Amino acid sequence: MLELRLVQGSLLKKVLEAIKDLVNDANFDCSATGFSLQAMDSSHVALVALLLRSEGFEHYRCDRNLSMGMNLNNMSKMMKCAGNDDIITIKADDGSDTVTFMFESPTQDKISDFEMKLMDIDSEHLGIPEAEYQSIVRMPSAEFARICKDLASIGDTVVISVTKEGVKFSTRGDIGTANIVLRQNTTVDKPEEATIIEMNEPVSLTFALRYMNSFTKATPLSSTVMISLSSELPVVVEYKIAEMGHIRFYLAPKIEEDEDETNPQG
Amino acid sequence: MLELRLVQGSLLKKVLEAIKDLVNDANFDCSATGFSLQAMDSSHVALVALLLRSEGFEHYRCDRNLSMGMNLNNMSKMMKCAGNDDIITIKADDGSDTVTFMFESPTQDKISDFEMKLMDIDSEHLGIPEAEYQSIVRMPSAEFARICKDLASIGDTVVISVTKEGVKFSTRGDIGTANIVLRQNTTVDKPEEATIIEMNEPVSLTFALRYMNSFTKATPLSSTVMISLSSELPVVVEYKIAEMGHIRFYLAPKIEEDEDETNPQG
Amino acid sequence: MLELRLVQGSLLKKVLEAIKDLVNDANFDCSATGFSLQAMDSSHVALVALLLRSEGFEHYRCDRNLSMGMNLNNMSKMMKCAGNDDIITIKADDGSDTVTFMFESPTQDKISDFEMKLMDIDSEHLGIPEAEYQSIVRMPSAEFARICKDLASIGDTVVISVTKEGVKFSTRGDIGTANIVLRQNTTVDKPEEATIIEMNEPVSLTFALRYMNSFTKATPLSSTVMISLSSELPVVVEYKIAEMGHIRFYLAPKIEEDEDETNPQG
Repeated sequence: MLELRLVQGSLLKKVLEAIKDLVNDANFDCSATGFSLQAMDSSHVALVALLLRSEGFEHYRCDRNLSMGMNLNNMSKMMKCAGNDDIITIKADDGSDTVTFMFESPTQDKISDFEMKLMDIDSEHLGIPEAEYQSIVRMPSAEFARICKDLASIGDTVVISVTKEGVKFSTRGDIGTANIVLRQNTTVDKPEEATIIEMNEPVSLTFALRYMNSFTKATPLSSTVMISLSSELPVVVEYKIAEMGHIRFYLAPKIEEDEDETNPQG
Repeated sequence: MLELRLVQGSLLKKVLEAIKDLVNDANFDCSATGFSLQAMDSSHVALVALLLRSEGFEHYRCDRNLSMGMNLNNMSKMMKCAGNDDIITIKADDGSDTVTFMFESPTQDKISDFEMKLMDIDSEHLGIPEAEYQSIVRMPSAEFARICKDLASIGDTVVISVTKEGVKFSTRGDIGTANIVLRQNTTVDKPEEATIIEMNEPVSLTFALRYMNSFTKATPLSSTVMISLSSELPVVVEYKIAEMGHIRFYLAPKIEEDEDETNPQG
Repeated sequence: MLELRLVQGSLLKKVLEAIKDLVNDANFDCSATGFSLQAMDSSHVALVALLLRSEGFEHYRCDRNLSMGMNLNNMSKMMKCAGNDDIITIKADDGSDTVTFMFESPTQDKISDFEMKLMDIDSEHLGIPEAEYQSIVRMPSAEFARICKDLASIGDTVVISVTKEGVKFSTRGDIGTANIVLRQNTTVDKPEEATIIEMNEPVSLTFALRYMNSFTKATPLSSTVMISLSSELPVVVEYKIAEMGHIRFYLAPKIEEDEDETNPQG
């Protein structure tokens, strides 16, 4: 038996909005430690990893480990029916082929039950080793989203270059080129407006803007984003989720010279 | 000669928005008692009845009964040209084949005249007998609109079930099922936020969500909606219009077992 | 060498939004007196003239007259990447085939460089003689935009008629006719809400609403619009740009009886 009660239900609404365009079907894994998901995007280029720790739930009962295959588009349709202030409870009986989402309005005058069919999804859980990164950029998530959107109007890929002074986002397209430089800035009124560069080694990597723009759908979850870069590793774009977890997106860099059309990120 | 001056012209704008998608052409009937309309929707499943009583107009002159056939889409185009604070006057000469809508801005600095061609429309006026209903639900109109919209993302029909404790809206579709329960609640800060159940007999009836969602286009006209249900009668979904009248939508229940594709509500 | 620094960069963003749908490619002409553009719309019916005087720039360096051919759609894509509070600097080296737009955020923490390819555009600069107009109407620009939009839902052309008392905008279409009268009104709380008629001679002229609606894309640039009318001349629809210049649209009146389909404004 599974029963997870999340007072700030809007977090789950935002999580679905963040990943439903990237991933069609995925297993949600439930264990004593938390509610998590790991899935490749439908073109098998990017990886999403979600973690909501059990401590973040008002009530968290998970008698045994459970993996529930869900169609994220259908789940999103149901999450959209929850009010922004609703408490959301996820319920499943052992061996059941359905999951129930219960939405309670703050006044308790409106109670909704949505029951969704589960699906069998083959998935292998990738072990993602902890790694040292050459550079880590922390910046306002809305600024990162704005930059990815702006650059996508000019070109298809973004070069992210980190130096001690700041981070540069560049692109090139038919109509011209664009370079956007953000300076390290830690002396801001609000901590979430800071741009913080943690650089062990300068790094310059190229990524498909299409995926970066997908990742920024998670912007409503957190006012800051952390971008971890190393030349030998996929970039990690991480959004913290309140006090309870995170959503992380992984994307391999493009080899700069490789611009042929068979590139899966093209 | 007809001359009806409506100070709160935005009401007429909202009335048109409420019915223009449901009804293409209809006769507006003008008599000493008021300005009214009764029309079937274009697929002859739902019925709309509008009444604006003469007392609600600042000036109401209607020398003899007049029935004016209008294309509601064209009339809506003209109404959209009125400002939200404009005074609207409807004018027609006896025997004329046009109607004039005059819009006066609050400062009287902008005066608009829109003249629209009338059309001949065959229509039979149905007598709708007053009836006793098994259950009547009064609830916030925005909540009703939200529920109909939410359920339509899951299924095609809604089962409305009334008990003493509350009203349940249910649907079922390919991706799962949904049940939304509203509890009777009369102890709210604002009367328009109350959910009031007046139950003589429990009732459970099925309706096409497509029509219910059309009816909720009238939501801007009133903060509450009244839903009258009886197993032998069409449901009545009623929105009061300020102090001057109402708009009522009638829809026959679906026979629950009848799910074949020839059903006109399908 | 060219370097023009505009503190209120949003003006340039608005200018592009105002003209990009009307004109595809155009030469921006830069001289000691200012930054200007004159171009016919793509169907060669309307003329746009833009002037931003050099005094309006914080820094204005233009060593020699320069004409830079730009694709306005591409330029608009780049301008959309500037923040509303950004300072915009336009830079070009002598003989270069590119122009650079630099955007500086108010805090100087974000600096963007967008480089766009220039194009060779044949254009003849029309001398537009100063003229006396029979009537000049000054009115709120938002009101003019609203009227043009409203009338376009009824008909294709607008007749603008000026008398001492006011200005009338009329149209006629399949569904009926519309007349909107604005009264001269100079006793308003805010000067930008005034409607001021300067009439030497009454005038009544017909124009294609499609073009008028294009012109109103400049509405965000100014709270008032000035419409100059004479029976022998193109109408001038002028929006002042802050303290630094204007954008003017010119459109020849339609000959009222000429409603054949070969009319270029049809």
